[in-house]
Order: sequence, then structure tokens, then C-alpha cells
Amino acid sequence: MVEVLREVTDADLDAIEIGAAILGTGGGGNPYIGKLRCREELKKGRRIPVIPLDELPDDALVVSLGGIGAPVVGVEKIEEGEECLRALRAIEKELDVTVDALISVEIGGANSMEPMLTAAQAGLPVVDGDGMGRAFPEMQMCTWSIYGHREAPGAMADEKGSIVVIRDTPDDLWLERIARSVVVAMGAAAGLATQPMRGDFVKRAAIPNTITQALNLGRAVLEAHETNADPIQTIIAHEKGCLLMTAKIVDLERHLKGGFAIGHLSLEGFGAFAGDRGRIDLQNEFLIFRRNDVVEVCVPDLIVVLDSDTGLPITTEMLRYGQRIAVLGLPAHALMKTPAALNVVGPAAFGYDDIMYKPMGDA
Amino acid sequence: MVEVLREVTDADLDAIEIGAAILGTGGGGNPYIGKLRCREELKKGRRIPVIPLDELPDDALVVSLGGIGAPVVGVEKIEEGEECLRALRAIEKELDVTVDALISVEIGGANSMEPMLTAAQAGLPVVDGDGMGRAFPEMQMCTWSIYGHREAPGAMADEKGSIVVIRDTPDDLWLERIARSVVVAMGAAAGLATQPMRGDFVKRAAIPNTITQALNLGRAVLEAHETNADPIQTIIAHEKGCLLMTAKIVDLERHLKGGFAIGHLSLEGFGAFAGDRGRIDLQNEFLIFRRNDVVEVCVPDLIVVLDSDTGLPITTEMLRYGQRIAVLGLPAHALMKTPAALNVVGPAAFGYDDIMYKPMGDA
Repeated sequence: MVEVLREVTDADLDAIEIGAAILGTGGGGNPYIGKLRCREELKKGRRIPVIPLDELPDDALVVSLGGIGAPVVGVEKIEEGEECLRALRAIEKELDVTVDALISVEIGGANSMEPMLTAAQAGLPVVDGDGMGRAFPEMQMCTWSIYGHREAPGAMADEKGSIVVIRDTPDDLWLERIARSVVVAMGAAAGLATQPMRGDFVKRAAIPNTITQALNLGRAVLEAHETNADPIQTIIAHEKGCLLMTAKIVDLERHLKGGFAIGHLSLEGFGAFAGDRGRIDLQNEFLIFRRNDVVEVCVPDLIVVLDSDTGLPITTEMLRYGQRIAVLGLPAHALMKTPAALNVVGPAAFGYDDIMYKPMGDA
Repeated sequence: MVEVLREVTDADLDAIEIGAAILGTGGGGNPYIGKLRCREELKKGRRIPVIPLDELPDDALVVSLGGIGAPVVGVEKIEEGEECLRALRAIEKELDVTVDALISVEIGGANSMEPMLTAAQAGLPVVDGDGMGRAFPEMQMCTWSIYGHREAPGAMADEKGSIVVIRDTPDDLWLERIARSVVVAMGAAAGLATQPMRGDFVKRAAIPNTITQALNLGRAVLEAHETNADPIQTIIAHEKGCLLMTAKIVDLERHLKGGFAIGHLSLEGFGAFAGDRGRIDLQNEFLIFRRNDVVEVCVPDLIVVLDSDTGLPITTEMLRYGQRIAVLGLPAHALMKTPAALNVVGPAAFGYDDIMYKPMGDA
């Protein structure tokens, strides 16, 4: 277990990839390509220094960045590799500032790697933390926005050389709407950097130490594989989660709408869960888990779907009829469960007006 | 007939509105609201000075601007009124320059008024000319782009306060694509200003004296109405065009696709054209006129549809089954008929690969 992470090295990347994929709760895109790019940068002699969140200077200028797009496209369309770097430079130019450190908007999925890649390219450190502690489908669903940072201006860059600066918007939801529209024109994949934040704000608002969390989680899974331990129980123990169901996917409805993968899967329990019916609703990420028509776990808590044999996470775009899966619930960080946060990332924010958030594990 | 226009006054606005609507060839949006806004500005004591194209200083910095959006929306959604002004200021801020004069991207339809309105608001003159000599559905279909000006950066502003700067694109078609995507998010109506041009370039590339042209054309129509002369023959004489058909609309297919009104109308000739069948294809503007399945007039030449009784122009969104219309062909300006221009605004640019442009009137 790494206690205080000061640098990400080549040996850490596989573990971070696994941890980030688990925390992606089915979405957030695949971190694999980003991992390879980070590896290339490290081979060139570049480095990925990490600042522990509590050591971040109050007056440091920190930029949150990540890729934006539809995960299904991310599988097939490979980024040119400097999209986020160009988005960062565009924000610096827009505001005539020099940025001191980077932070991931979401640790879950591909955006775990993007700020580390940009950090190596730009010679900047990355802060150990992120804005979601998982993955979510929309930009305003991050703690920066929830706790009062205005995201505009935001800068976007694609692989063809286009750069768009969203200079001002009435609110962060409008930034998300316009950015989502721009990324469709850009071919459904772009890098995005938003208005720099001060270190003291980031220390208050970031989900803390999530690079370390992903790294330790991934290492635990790798170690379980090596020692023939149960990776599913390992994840549950590491994240203080619970096993919701072992099940077979008996129905799968999934379609693209406005750049999002939307749908649900129906489950038939097996093993200890034989006789149970399950259902998971998804919008890029897994949102709601129901057992026998009763909601048991919902956003912002994490619903993780693993291959029941290998314990490896399955993303929403890799779901297949007949797959045998294990469904886990992992508790969200406290910063994601305040009333202010639930307004933005609770069930109602995804259109489930009738579902009241109840922290998982509560009776 | 005004020979050299130095200022647009309240008395000119009705005539410019009529002329611009005719030159809009069914699209370009309705200039009515823009006219009212110009009138308000003039009532406040503001002015709309006009620079004749040949008097423009070589080193003057000229910005082309206009509204962007779907014409059908423009009918129902009224702009806040300073969208183009904010887009202009955003371009000035982006490049740290002060603009000397404005010019319309298209004289046809609503964008005849937008630069005059912004000129009054900003205390700047408007250049007598435009980038199309008519209306076209896409931004890169203007002489600035055709004759070598790079349109990026472009700045967009909506009525809610959002500002987006498209800082760089691989080419002007990408600027159009991204801008079109942004305007959908903005609610299908925004002001857009593009990278400033030097006066010497504008003098070479602009369709000359088109504010004067719209004004004189509109005045001729108004005079025809007052003297009970035939407004249709007046337009034909003024624009050196021809009457293609008097006809009844017997079929009308029109739908919205990607923010554009796309479709066609089928015509049954009457009067001197009894027995003729006609068809007009449209994409915001009228693109192709066929008589008995043979293409007779096509873009970039102007196809104008008038009410056969009143001689007033009918826009594509006001077309109705059973309407009795007069279809006119008006020749495009020579700058729109060069090989370079035909690549961008000829029939093939609209997907008609099988139609070879033949200037109207040629045997």
C-alpha cells in the first residue's frame, strides 16, 4: 500500500489502469490508450510528479482537465495524444496565466490517465485527487462545479487541430451543453480544460488521494490474481463495498442518444442470489441497481460490474447478453453526498424524480 | 436611384428590407426584426454611416458578421439585440485589435440588417458590399473564404450571455461545422463575427455595393406598388433577371435536418406557362429550378419566389400548398461564378454532383 504518492512510474500504470476502470462504474472511457501514451512519455525520460492534496500551496493555479466524448467512440477513435495539452495551452492563453499543476476531473476511466499524460508533456505535477471520485457523464457533475467554482472559460482541442474556447456561459450546465455540442462536431472526442482553480479551493473541493486509491486498488487486484485470491472479495474489502449480486445478463437495451450510451440491463441471479431478479440503468455509467424492482443502490454511490470469473471490470459498451457478472456497490465519498452534491449527482439529476437517494448500507 | 450611399437613414430601412428579402432567395431569415432594431437605434440618435467599397482604406480592419441559425427558429425566437455586438467585442478581445468597419456576410435576408444594427450600436461604419450578394446556408460559402481569407478565429454570442470563440480550425468548413454545432446548443440563433480582414482584401473580394443594390431594388418595388406598376417586371428589369414560371405549388416537401430546412416544391404552370411542370429544390435557400425535369437555373444564380399577385418574396418557411407564385431567375455576381467560387457554391457543393453549372440565360 502506497501511503503518500510522489511520482507515478511505469510500474504503477497497470495498477492505476485497473483501479480507474473499476472506479469508472462502467463509463469514463477505457484508460488503456492513455496508459500506453503515459508509458511512451516516461520512456522518453519525462516524468509524472504527484503533489499530495494537502501539500498543494494555497495560491497554486490548478487546471482540471480530461477528455470529453462518447465512450463508444473512444474505443474506436484514438486521440492524437496532445488534445489535453493543447486545451491547457488554450486556457493559459485565454487568461494570460501560467498553470502550476493539473488535476483530473474524474478518476474513473480514461480521465485518470489524461492529466498524467499532460503532466508529462507539459512538465507539470498532477495533484493526487479528482473532481468525482468515480466517473459521471457530464462535466458539471464534479466537485469543482458543485462547490462554487465557475467552469468557464473552458477550452477544447481535437485531434485535427481545432481549438474552441467557451469564454462565458450563464452557468456550468450551459458550459456542458455547449461543450457537448462542440465535441459532436469534433468527431465525439476532444480534450477539455477549464478555468484554473486556486490551491486552497482544490484542497477543500477535491475528492482526496484518488490516484493513490486507484493505484492501491489496482495493486490489490493484481496481487489477488497472482496469489489466486478472489479479486471480487479483494475489491470489496479494499473499497469497503458489498456484493450486490452474481447474475447472468438476460436482457440488454442500450442506444446512443445525444452522445451518451443510454439503456438498462436485466439480470437473473445465480449462486447465493438464485431467484433474484436485478436491473441496472445506465447513462454512460451505471446509475441505479434494483433487486426485484426495489432500488437498492443508486448514484452517487458506485455500481461496479465485474466479470464473475476474472473479476475484471466490464464497461457499458462491452456488456453482452448472457455475460455472467458480479455487481458491486461501493460507497461514494462524503463530498458527493452533501445536499449540494445530491442536487447535481443524485438520482433526480438523471431524471429519476421518484428515487430518493439513500446511502448504500443504510437500513 | 441612389448612386453613392453614405448613410442609411430611417427612410431607407423599408426599402432595404424588401430588397434584402428578394436577394435572400427564400432563405437568410426575415430582416423584419433587424429593421425594427435599426429603427430603434436611429431614434436614439445613433447613426449608420456607410463607406462605399472603393473608398475603404487599404489598411482598415473590417469584420464580417451576421446571425447564424435555422431560419425557421429565427421566425419565432427573437434575438436579444446585441448578439453580433458581443461577438464583435469577443473577436476584438481575442486578437487584441480595434475594428474599423463592419460588413455583412450576406446581403440576403436578416443578415442585411445585422451589421447595420451593430454599426449603430458600436459607432462604426458599415461597408457597402457583402460576402455573397445573396443568401447561402453555410458560412464558408462567402467570398472571404473563397478568395483566401481564413475565417478562424470566429466568435459567437447568444442571447443568454454565452460567448464561444472558435480559435482555430483546419479549414473554414470545420469552422462552419463547429459553429453550426454550437448554435444548436445555443438554441439555434447566435451572432457570429469572424477574423478581421484588411481593406485591400475586402475591396477585391466583396460583392460590391449590395446595400445600395438592396435599397434601390426595394425602392423600385415600393414605387411599383404606389404607381400600380407590375412589381415582378420591376424586379426583373432592376436585376436583369427573367421570369421562369408563374405556377401553383402542387406539392411541398420540407423538413428540418441538422438545423437546415431541406426539401423541394413541385409546380404546375399557369398563364403563359400552362402545361409546364416545375420543381424547386431548397436548403434554406432555393437551389435548383427544373422545368419539365430539365435544370434551367441553379446556384449560385438566384432563384426568387414571389407571390404572383403582390410580387412580395416568399421565404422557404412561408411556402404553402396551393400558393400561386412567380419564379424568377437573377444572375449571380461574377465573383460567385469563377471556378474557385463554383467549387464552394456550385450545385456539386450542395450534393448535386450530376448538375453542371451553366450561367442562366446561356443557351
